[in-house]
Amino acid sequence: MPDFTIVIGSRQWSSWSMRPWLALRQTGAAFDEIVLQHRTPAGKAEAVALGPTGLVPLLIDRRASEPLKVWDSLAICEYLAESFPEAGLWPADRAARAVARSVSAEMHSGFRPLRMALSMDLFAHLPGIGLDDPGVAADIARIDAIFRDSCAQHGQEGPYLFGKRTIADAMFAPVVSRFRTYEPKLSGPAAEYVATMLDDDGFKAWEDAARREL
Amino acid sequence: MPDFTIVIGSRQWSSWSMRPWLALRQTGAAFDEIVLQHRTPAGKAEAVALGPTGLVPLLIDRRASEPLKVWDSLAICEYLAESFPEAGLWPADRAARAVARSVSAEMHSGFRPLRMALSMDLFAHLPGIGLDDPGVAADIARIDAIFRDSCAQHGQEGPYLFGKRTIADAMFAPVVSRFRTYEPKLSGPAAEYVATMLDDDGFKAWEDAARREL
Repeated sequence: MPDFTIVIGSRQWSSWSMRPWLALRQTGAAFDEIVLQHRTPAGKAEAVALGPTGLVPLLIDRRASEPLKVWDSLAICEYLAESFPEAGLWPADRAARAVARSVSAEMHSGFRPLRMALSMDLFAHLPGIGLDDPGVAADIARIDAIFRDSCAQHGQEGPYLFGKRTIADAMFAPVVSRFRTYEPKLSGPAAEYVATMLDDDGFKAWEDAARREL
Repeated sequence: MPDFTIVIGSRQWSSWSMRPWLALRQTGAAFDEIVLQHRTPAGKAEAVALGPTGLVPLLIDRRASEPLKVWDSLAICEYLAESFPEAGLWPADRAARAVARSVSAEMHSGFRPLRMALSMDLFAHLPGIGLDDPGVAADIARIDAIFRDSCAQHGQEGPYLFGKRTIADAMFAPVVSRFRTYEPKLSGPAAEYVATMLDDDGFKAWEDAARREL
């Protein structure tokens, strides 16, 4: 049995699950998965049986004698960053790490209009739908600024938000999928970052597995 | 000029601001404050001028040549935990720290029914109001379980959620204020934890300062 199990929702829709799964994959650790049916009574019952919140995602770490359960997308990411320092899940630079945590936490608790109106569906193509809501437009403008500013500041170190791939990219991966689906107008640098993520091996691995779930 | 400035909203209402302010106070670092008028055009304009999100809280760290801005309640807490390891802002034990981060992140992105229906008002007393909404009741039940389970597991180490006072207590401090205002029925251990927090020196310092803002 591998050291880790990650409990996730159906990959086509479960934006919260995608984030820590990408981080876990980046660690290189061996893990298996339990995929629960998104928003079904059976999926909910299993989630309730597995963890304290009845929500996905949930990480189970079996490396100690007593299996440890860690929940919530961001807490799992922090736990993995701490457990696998060599994976570079946060930027090595102190100031960059602070900003990466800031934008990741901003995503974690914010952008509700966008999350509600433009739900993640990996395989949908709905250009223009929902974009004229002012709250959605404001969220898109702020995310565009995050993409633009981060890439401008760290572009010399690599094509991801903070140069190399970090948890910040995992946190915004579902937004990248949404931008492909709903096609809002983005600045050049933000569009370039979206293209980088759509071609990212982690992102594509999640998509491939999602196709196999259909 | 002190090393840190924290930008917060009016203390009576700004639950998001209370959290990192408590963590910052716990570090013992010297800091000053900018208090913006909660939900007023003037307060909003200042917030937009100060930080990238136009939201409070915002931390400014002047210890380096270039002042560093860190935003979002949880990201500020993580930054302080990393910057002041001796302050013990997270539990020292790896497993306890993982769970402390899990419940803190759960609070950060969740409990929306409770946050919407039972808004924080430090000086209000509205027993029973809003409690019959099923979403609110479910949130209260889950928070009661968090208080109960954490205190049961760490009660030997101290009266806070993880024994000694950590970021998890700061994250739930606004809920403690809400519980005093709206008086939901709580389990014995949860009620005991609420009493501990209402008597906490950080909590009381926030309240005293809030009174001076009136």
